[in-house]
Amino acid sequence: VKIAVLGVGLIGGSIGLAARTRACAQVCGYDPDPAALEDALALGAIDEPAADIAQAVAGAQVVFAAAPVGALAETVRTALAHCAQDCVVSDVGSTKLALGDVRCDARFIGGHPLAGAESAGVAHARADLFADATWYLISAETTHPQPRDPYLHARLHDLIERFGAHPVTIAADAHDRLMASVSHLPHVLANVLAAQAADAYAREAAAAGAGPSLNDAIRVAGANTGVWTDIYLANRVALIEAIDATTARLADVRAALAHADAEALAAWNERAGHARRTLLGSDD
Amino acid sequence: VKIAVLGVGLIGGSIGLAARTRACAQVCGYDPDPAALEDALALGAIDEPAADIAQAVAGAQVVFAAAPVGALAETVRTALAHCAQDCVVSDVGSTKLALGDVRCDARFIGGHPLAGAESAGVAHARADLFADATWYLISAETTHPQPRDPYLHARLHDLIERFGAHPVTIAADAHDRLMASVSHLPHVLANVLAAQAADAYAREAAAAGAGPSLNDAIRVAGANTGVWTDIYLANRVALIEAIDATTARLADVRAALAHADAEALAAWNERAGHARRTLLGSDD
Repeated sequence: VKIAVLGVGLIGGSIGLAARTRACAQVCGYDPDPAALEDALALGAIDEPAADIAQAVAGAQVVFAAAPVGALAETVRTALAHCAQDCVVSDVGSTKLALGDVRCDARFIGGHPLAGAESAGVAHARADLFADATWYLISAETTHPQPRDPYLHARLHDLIERFGAHPVTIAADAHDRLMASVSHLPHVLANVLAAQAADAYAREAAAAGAGPSLNDAIRVAGANTGVWTDIYLANRVALIEAIDATTARLADVRAALAHADAEALAAWNERAGHARRTLLGSDD
Repeated sequence: VKIAVLGVGLIGGSIGLAARTRACAQVCGYDPDPAALEDALALGAIDEPAADIAQAVAGAQVVFAAAPVGALAETVRTALAHCAQDCVVSDVGSTKLALGDVRCDARFIGGHPLAGAESAGVAHARADLFADATWYLISAETTHPQPRDPYLHARLHDLIERFGAHPVTIAADAHDRLMASVSHLPHVLANVLAAQAADAYAREAAAAGAGPSLNDAIRVAGANTGVWTDIYLANRVALIEAIDATTARLADVRAALAHADAEALAAWNERAGHARRTLLGSDD
């Protein structure tokens, strides 16, 4: 199988490595940054570099757009304009509705692997980055002018399974609402908590230091500003809803504290423990 | 030096171990749970068990009250009633103002080691639990009827340094406000986030799973309900202030999202990264 990877950073590079080592694919790569493209070639993440998107997607059967969220729609649009009629084009963006009208092309199937790492860049790419990871595939849009080709879907689905990932089908709006609460909100709260804690140390003139619980809670605070500003903006409608729900939950805790309601606080804490165990799939 | 430990759980047991192995102290222990007391003796956390607080503090030069927050004031009061006039009594509670009138006894110096572990109980106690940990000591109360004895303070301070901890002096109200933001608020937000994420998976009918950032953010959600309900209630005034500040910070982010203000979001994210690096003392 011939695949094209548009954007060879951590995710694109790992797709290239996984495709070459786990699916015997031939990988053509493109990146607007020539140095990244050279590194990808040197690291074996791609078989050959392309001068532009049109050259990269020529002859490809599967295209992965792995550009930053802000550049994804344009990258996908260009790929669709130049790739073959029986080519499937996917992306790896953290938000799906923001892709806009490219979602209406029957050859496009949005995707989102739940994988990443502390460090960006192709130097950190790994062939097993997607092993056992959930990889969301967006279900056919109700607005599609023509039905989706089942062969294109099967080709993408099978390839992702070869990467070791678990493809899970979800609608675009459900995906975005879900990510708002389970991925984007945690980043917002980490930011808010880091600012609140740093201000508290400054206000009390105490030496700053973070215990283990604060440490964990702020680990992603201030993550890559370019990447995350794009994500926050792309999913702002759902994120605002998640923030409003969080504010309402905080108001409930505040009321229980104001009334010194031990019973309500204990019940709330127990529910949180139950939610945590559900999320982690543990029984501890 | 003879010390008494009132409550031999994780913290009390670790104080006993540290005192015996690092300060050549003779340790008398008391716990309302006879099984815990037996375990503490078997594990070498104490030299001898006492039948009650009066017996435990007899002849002691330093007393550590390591009971749960809800039982601390009563434990300290009983210790002060039975210990010698030249004995220093301290505690290890996460909130300080809630101790009430016992704080006015000149022999009492409140304390709070920033140490703990995932698992409670004397079985998890370690002699090096406090190594390199901040150990807050509460500065003399302005309401003290008599000046604090400098020898008692020095005795406690030196002992804590022998444990390997770093004693840091702070006022009770500053301590409680600080803990509200850097310890109690992180637990509140972990609870809120776990509930929000679990509800989101349920609402979108998606299989629950937590990525690494959510995973870290909810690690302490639903922590020991008895312990934490006490802490939340004991520090509810400062915690309500921290929650209100958090709500205001969330409102600011919400406004930036509603206006699609990329510049404000980017600046906010950069400030959060700076706050994180300040808190962790890192330059990355």
